[in-house]
Amino acid sequence: MTETPVKRRRKRDRGASRGQVGQPRAPFILRKLGTFNILGEEGLSLIEENADTILAETGMEFVEDPEILEIFANAGCDVDGTRVRFERGFCRKTIQATAPKQFMQHARNPANSVQLGGDATVLCPSWGPPFVHDLDRGRRYATFEDFQTLVKLHHTIPWLHHSGGVVCEPVDLPANKRHLDMLYAHIRYSDRPFMGAFIGAERAGHALDMARIVFGAEYVAENPVLYCVSNTNAPLVMDAHMSGALKTYARAGQPVATAPWVLTGAMSPCTVAGTMAQVLAEALACLTLAQLVKPSAPVLMGSFASTMSMQSGAPTFGTPEAGQMVLAAGQLARRLGVPLHTVGTLSASKVPDAQSQQEATWGLMMSMFAGANLINHATGWLEGGLVTSFEKTMIDADLCGKLARFFDGIDLSENAQAMSAIAATGPGAHFLGSEHTQANFMSALFRPETPDNNAYEHWEAAGSLDTAQRANGLWKKHLEAYEDPGLDPAIDEELQAYIAQRKSETPDMDYF
Amino acid sequence: MTETPVKRRRKRDRGASRGQVGQPRAPFILRKLGTFNILGEEGLSLIEENADTILAETGMEFVEDPEILEIFANAGCDVDGTRVRFERGFCRKTIQATAPKQFMQHARNPANSVQLGGDATVLCPSWGPPFVHDLDRGRRYATFEDFQTLVKLHHTIPWLHHSGGVVCEPVDLPANKRHLDMLYAHIRYSDRPFMGAFIGAERAGHALDMARIVFGAEYVAENPVLYCVSNTNAPLVMDAHMSGALKTYARAGQPVATAPWVLTGAMSPCTVAGTMAQVLAEALACLTLAQLVKPSAPVLMGSFASTMSMQSGAPTFGTPEAGQMVLAAGQLARRLGVPLHTVGTLSASKVPDAQSQQEATWGLMMSMFAGANLINHATGWLEGGLVTSFEKTMIDADLCGKLARFFDGIDLSENAQAMSAIAATGPGAHFLGSEHTQANFMSALFRPETPDNNAYEHWEAAGSLDTAQRANGLWKKHLEAYEDPGLDPAIDEELQAYIAQRKSETPDMDYF
Repeated sequence: MTETPVKRRRKRDRGASRGQVGQPRAPFILRKLGTFNILGEEGLSLIEENADTILAETGMEFVEDPEILEIFANAGCDVDGTRVRFERGFCRKTIQATAPKQFMQHARNPANSVQLGGDATVLCPSWGPPFVHDLDRGRRYATFEDFQTLVKLHHTIPWLHHSGGVVCEPVDLPANKRHLDMLYAHIRYSDRPFMGAFIGAERAGHALDMARIVFGAEYVAENPVLYCVSNTNAPLVMDAHMSGALKTYARAGQPVATAPWVLTGAMSPCTVAGTMAQVLAEALACLTLAQLVKPSAPVLMGSFASTMSMQSGAPTFGTPEAGQMVLAAGQLARRLGVPLHTVGTLSASKVPDAQSQQEATWGLMMSMFAGANLINHATGWLEGGLVTSFEKTMIDADLCGKLARFFDGIDLSENAQAMSAIAATGPGAHFLGSEHTQANFMSALFRPETPDNNAYEHWEAAGSLDTAQRANGLWKKHLEAYEDPGLDPAIDEELQAYIAQRKSETPDMDYF
Repeated sequence: MTETPVKRRRKRDRGASRGQVGQPRAPFILRKLGTFNILGEEGLSLIEENADTILAETGMEFVEDPEILEIFANAGCDVDGTRVRFERGFCRKTIQATAPKQFMQHARNPANSVQLGGDATVLCPSWGPPFVHDLDRGRRYATFEDFQTLVKLHHTIPWLHHSGGVVCEPVDLPANKRHLDMLYAHIRYSDRPFMGAFIGAERAGHALDMARIVFGAEYVAENPVLYCVSNTNAPLVMDAHMSGALKTYARAGQPVATAPWVLTGAMSPCTVAGTMAQVLAEALACLTLAQLVKPSAPVLMGSFASTMSMQSGAPTFGTPEAGQMVLAAGQLARRLGVPLHTVGTLSASKVPDAQSQQEATWGLMMSMFAGANLINHATGWLEGGLVTSFEKTMIDADLCGKLARFFDGIDLSENAQAMSAIAATGPGAHFLGSEHTQANFMSALFRPETPDNNAYEHWEAAGSLDTAQRANGLWKKHLEAYEDPGLDPAIDEELQAYIAQRKSETPDMDYF
């Protein structure tokens, strides 16, 4: 990858070193702490062996895309109709031979470029919901106005590193063209990295075209500037919508995360060990495809293994088994030698209440302890992914900030040891007025925005607001403080012309 | 410790193998997963060295209790007025020479006895609040009726292992006698282990007397049946209220946890490394005292290191720094060779809302990852410890259950691997009807009680209740299902006579 700066960089770069709430931010988390390893060598080998058995005996279906079958056949795999079976160890060997262990995804503001892999973690906002929710207007179908508002809101959150993709599904726009508007909104209203369109080869091509307008074609040819999530249809199927985008991005050298989404008990066995073997098998097959399409294509192993209520069949989140699975996935990805893509503050709750935060906190903490390299849905997700909540976005943002600070580890400097402060203060006195406290209090402790820590009487006098109500005021305050990162007018014009041209080529359609 | 069964055991023991919500329970968590280690050898040694420096140079104040000064002087410590200084390494050596690494605390129902130390974790309810809160009656001063109700409610929660101590402060009872009523309520309405009175030698003596009535004097002489939390007045002071109880329990061979409670920036430096050195120094001094009073007395190192808002001075919970401190405390306790006592689902929130669960989940998860052996306040705590919330008790209880299941680790059995289910289901089919799912669905996934995972329309039809509102119905349902464990009438009579006698000896007082 070249070191060439992006095309037509803005003259005055806004650095990424400070968040709008006055606390220092970094373009991504660089974890100074280790990972929590839930499985030993025996368990990991067992799951890897089982994944190989699944790939060798059951295999995986690649439907509606004959080119893929040819690619696999040429590589010596056993292709039987649309079913592809893999010799034991073939996938792992193929991936390990060429897939990079870590790489950058560049932003148009270089200060916001993110590292994918190693000790880096990149937090992305909510992805996919057709509804939005806020306390003023309740739950409603999302519009493009909501989409733009969310992009701007996310841009004000120092603890998010990525502008994301479908931050909500703008259902007021034609389904076959809205990807163009979404990509434009990310480019126009944020200068952080963003995701490419993920359904089908054609839309992936549009994302690449737009990226070339922003970064320059040469730069895009040499550097990752997009990010694609390519899901399987578990169990063990990949369709052309997904494989088309996967091939397009892989060929263009743009990162692809293959994230098998499963509900244990429905799309995989109802056990953790069984589910993880299946998830690994699916990821191995898809990452192998990416490497066969283009050796050295940047890829991430994805894992989005959720549980379900065995009483009602409803998806459940923040569960013990989901925590176990993401930790296992982290270990499996590290052994494979590729970064891990996974998910964050998931909840089945309908409102930003206690359930939503018990589940969200559990989920994001587990993904961080797993050493995940990119965490999708780190903010805002409610109702099993049907809703992006404005208030939950702010509450989750605090959690993102807490985790960033936590993984910075314990400062062991002489100043942090504070031995002279302890000696000077002595038994029974207090540290509030000590020189050490005065010198350190601004930076010593992380300051989240949504909690109320005041005395009951003060809280009551301020209106007895719960967290969601406070967050309602907060996202509005953030939006008021939103600073437009600006966009070179020439690029803007070129993008708009490109979008208009693409839109004019086909009639609007309200379905995919 | 003898294997003698407790005196006058109930004829029909209710086993501890099943919770009242139909999911299996264990008398304590036996963690099958490791701990998360935040510090390396260098950081740990540094903090240990600094604690030794504090003990040698600044020392600790032991006020209002001349006997302690004599004990320390006889052991060769440097006693100057009420200030005691310790030679480097003396405390560690003294503790390591005699303190047991793990021990049991026995319950009157032996199936509920708990292990303290090793890979065991014991979860206790809220402790200390003068107020209670529920959605029906709001926030109010706690009464003895609330206390009894909470003891019963806790007894219905399969994921709590301990009946606790001051589950709320019954302010309608005279302050100088209410410890007798509280002890009686624990003994009468629960058959799980409970805590002793913690303020002063006299009340500790009452707790021992009552334990002797329940378990028999011989049994109490040989076995831990109480639990005492003995806090310092940070920084570096212990007063006679605490040292009196500490000495009494230690002499009786009953477990004592010395838990320095600090607010970083007020009662310790505003940095993690400085605070942990002070916390360790205080714990070392107090555990040394316990071992000098009675070599081999069962003790726990406590850590209750909270943060504060550096803007308002208000205590804050669920913070990055609190997480770092409890993880460090876990490592320091293991190196010292004693179990760790710490805290759980703390929150500064006034209501059981989103803040309360973001903070609670963070706190309890961190304490579990720290390998804590006893976690106080694992349920119910609100408003920085001023309130026990009935609804939050139920929401936190789910978290306790999730963590118990999580730390059970990943089942790697042939059944859990589910390889034949994957082969039989194959690509594109679903597992809902598979034989494997049918055989496993009842036990495969943990089932919490407070979440609503249903579709929006079902949730709306059920009244659009948030988590706290659902929990309101749930604690009532639990109380209705409460099963009285019973108490031998002869023991009951003896206890009541003892309490009446003690109460008659002094006038009521409304202060301590």
